[in-house]
Amino acid sequence: MNETRYERGAAMLAAVDGPAGLAVVEQLAAAFPAFARYLVEFPFGDIYARDGLGLRERELATVAALCALGHALPQLRVHVHAALHVGCKPHEVVEVIMQMAVYAGFPAALNGLAVARSVFEEAGITLPIAD
Amino acid sequence: MNETRYERGAAMLAAVDGPAGLAVVEQLAAAFPAFARYLVEFPFGDIYARDGLGLRERELATVAALCALGHALPQLRVHVHAALHVGCKPHEVVEVIMQMAVYAGFPAALNGLAVARSVFEEAGITLPIAD
Amino acid sequence: MNETRYERGAAMLAAVDGPAGLAVVEQLAAAFPAFARYLVEFPFGDIYARDGLGLRERELATVAALCALGHALPQLRVHVHAALHVGCKPHEVVEVIMQMAVYAGFPAALNGLAVARSVFEEAGITLPIAD
Amino acid sequence: MNETRYERGAAMLAAVDGPAGLAVVEQLAAAFPAFARYLVEFPFGDIYARDGLGLRERELATVAALCALGHALPQLRVHVHAALHVGCKPHEVVEVIMQMAVYAGFPAALNGLAVARSVFEEAGITLPIAD
Amino acid sequence: MNETRYERGAAMLAAVDGPAGLAVVEQLAAAFPAFARYLVEFPFGDIYARDGLGLRERELATVAALCALGHALPQLRVHVHAALHVGCKPHEVVEVIMQMAVYAGFPAALNGLAVARSVFEEAGITLPIAD
Amino acid sequence: MNETRYERGAAMLAAVDGPAGLAVVEQLAAAFPAFARYLVEFPFGDIYARDGLGLRERELATVAALCALGHALPQLRVHVHAALHVGCKPHEVVEVIMQMAVYAGFPAALNGLAVARSVFEEAGITLPIAD
Repeated sequence: MNETRYERGAAMLAAVDGPAGLAVVEQLAAAFPAFARYLVEFPFGDIYARDGLGLRERELATVAALCALGHALPQLRVHVHAALHVGCKPHEVVEVIMQMAVYAGFPAALNGLAVARSVFEEAGITLPIAD
Repeated sequence: MNETRYERGAAMLAAVDGPAGLAVVEQLAAAFPAFARYLVEFPFGDIYARDGLGLRERELATVAALCALGHALPQLRVHVHAALHVGCKPHEVVEVIMQMAVYAGFPAALNGLAVARSVFEEAGITLPIAD
Repeated sequence: MNETRYERGAAMLAAVDGPAGLAVVEQLAAAFPAFARYLVEFPFGDIYARDGLGLRERELATVAALCALGHALPQLRVHVHAALHVGCKPHEVVEVIMQMAVYAGFPAALNGLAVARSVFEEAGITLPIAD
Repeated sequence: MNETRYERGAAMLAAVDGPAGLAVVEQLAAAFPAFARYLVEFPFGDIYARDGLGLRERELATVAALCALGHALPQLRVHVHAALHVGCKPHEVVEVIMQMAVYAGFPAALNGLAVARSVFEEAGITLPIAD
Repeated sequence: MNETRYERGAAMLAAVDGPAGLAVVEQLAAAFPAFARYLVEFPFGDIYARDGLGLRERELATVAALCALGHALPQLRVHVHAALHVGCKPHEVVEVIMQMAVYAGFPAALNGLAVARSVFEEAGITLPIAD
Repeated sequence: MNETRYERGAAMLAAVDGPAGLAVVEQLAAAFPAFARYLVEFPFGDIYARDGLGLRERELATVAALCALGHALPQLRVHVHAALHVGCKPHEVVEVIMQMAVYAGFPAALNGLAVARSVFEEAGITLPIAD
């Protein structure tokens, strides 16, 4: 049934981030196959697959946490993309990152906004968003 | 207009956390009045008062960030309470904190769950929540 | 096969920390059963159960990480106990924590030593260890 | 010459924090003598003893860092006391801690102010300080 | 009076960092105008503009905090520049960063020194500074 | 006897990391000679030179801590190299980094694995390691 967790996780990862998420896992699996499997199974097969919280809320919470941690900018990039993919509006992502100035300080928020700007540019989203 | 930011922040703080939040500010103001004013004006008068993200989403993002940071358990306590106050379900708060195991590690999530358990007990919310 | 992961994790947790570890999980499960299950399955059933690194090395690495993180003192307490349980010498635990002064700063190391002192006292280990 | 570093460090620690600092070291030395020696020799014998930055500036920088780190409240307590001991005004300590809201977030600053309030009370310093 | 806070903040930012600081804000404002406004108003219009702590002390405290946080190297670059701009000596900046090895560990200090070296090179400041 | 600590530290650094470690120190010494001296004397002359913990265990603990901290990737690179140099197997390094997903979260572990992959490539170590 490990396969079941993996399959559920892979489906959830695709739901969360589309083909981009699966591509990240495949690249990881080429070097660290066990860890790639854990990454699919635990975060996505166990946690994201749970009922009781919508994907939009999950992604906004993840954007908040990754921005606040400070050392997780590559992962923040993935999850800003994922947030848009599950239907968060660009301005919602920006609101969450701005809010991190309160809890984690302006540097964490500024670094988070730089990531968002870069993802938005790739996605053809024009800045500034009307305030 | 500083008063306007303060008034808007105080109203927002009351909306977010009820009388408990204002009591925290009053206690702070007795020792550090300028900082108490900033706490009302910037986080609540400027950030929380913005359109474009619902209070439920704001509180879930805050719970995520405070749990992930690790050093902010007193503030996490306030915002678990606030999350319930703005209509988040207890299980939604638990979902967000459990999700932090993925991004900030199991210790941060375990410490966050201990805070949630304590707030829930005070609020008469029975654990375990049906899974 | 989830049961297999759980069973493997529970056995590993018992090997790592003895009855104390299982007691922590049981207490957690009373309030947060899903998270208690994840805690057994992923850290212990997936990671600790892997070949290729001895339990002594795993526990020393965990002590290092929990001390360096700074916000994980309750978990550091558990793993100082676990380190002794899997055969680490008290002076090895102290060496690892002292080494954290280099990488995470003296405050993290001092807080870690205070935890070690408390665990050692409960275990009847006399300090100072001969230098 | 290790003794020279130790002696220079002990003298500097006394200059920085008075008898309280030496008492902390003695208590530490009872359990972890080597680490107590390093604590005197490197931070105080090597770093604080350097020319080129006044003790007031050193203590304000230390208060800033310990507050920003978030996990170092016991050490922040020592250094708020030390800051006063080397001639920093209470309001200067408060200014530095409030400033940390910008860089490390409001929770870190709030926790820092709580420490300052406690030290000030023990020292008979009345709050609020005139703004 | 928001304009007053903004104007006071912009003047303070110019005092702290010269044209470089204002350029950072303008670039930010092109993408995130609300956040650029908050950045001028709260950190500079509210905090830096306060009496009771000199700009030199404020900048040394900021350099300490940004170095200790570890994730704030882009902001550390700005504030090493700002520290020089408000009259801190290069060796004072280096002393503060070296002191962070004590509180945040050698990696944070080493990363901070790399930033300082880069800013000093751009400013034509020769290293090593006479010890 | 400072020379003795320095000499002991330099010999230990060479034992830990070979010529690469000494090259890092020389480059640092060109800009910050005092700090380069401290880096040899305290971490390597005082801590690593202590009896009671093998170099393999010290390096695995350091890899764990640097990965968990999140902001210390340049130093993690040095110590992944050093871990191999003192006889740790590549798969042991990978095990420690994977274990950090439990304590510091998946982003810290993913960033650590990316560093390991890069060091392994330079060392001609083929990935994936047989699981």
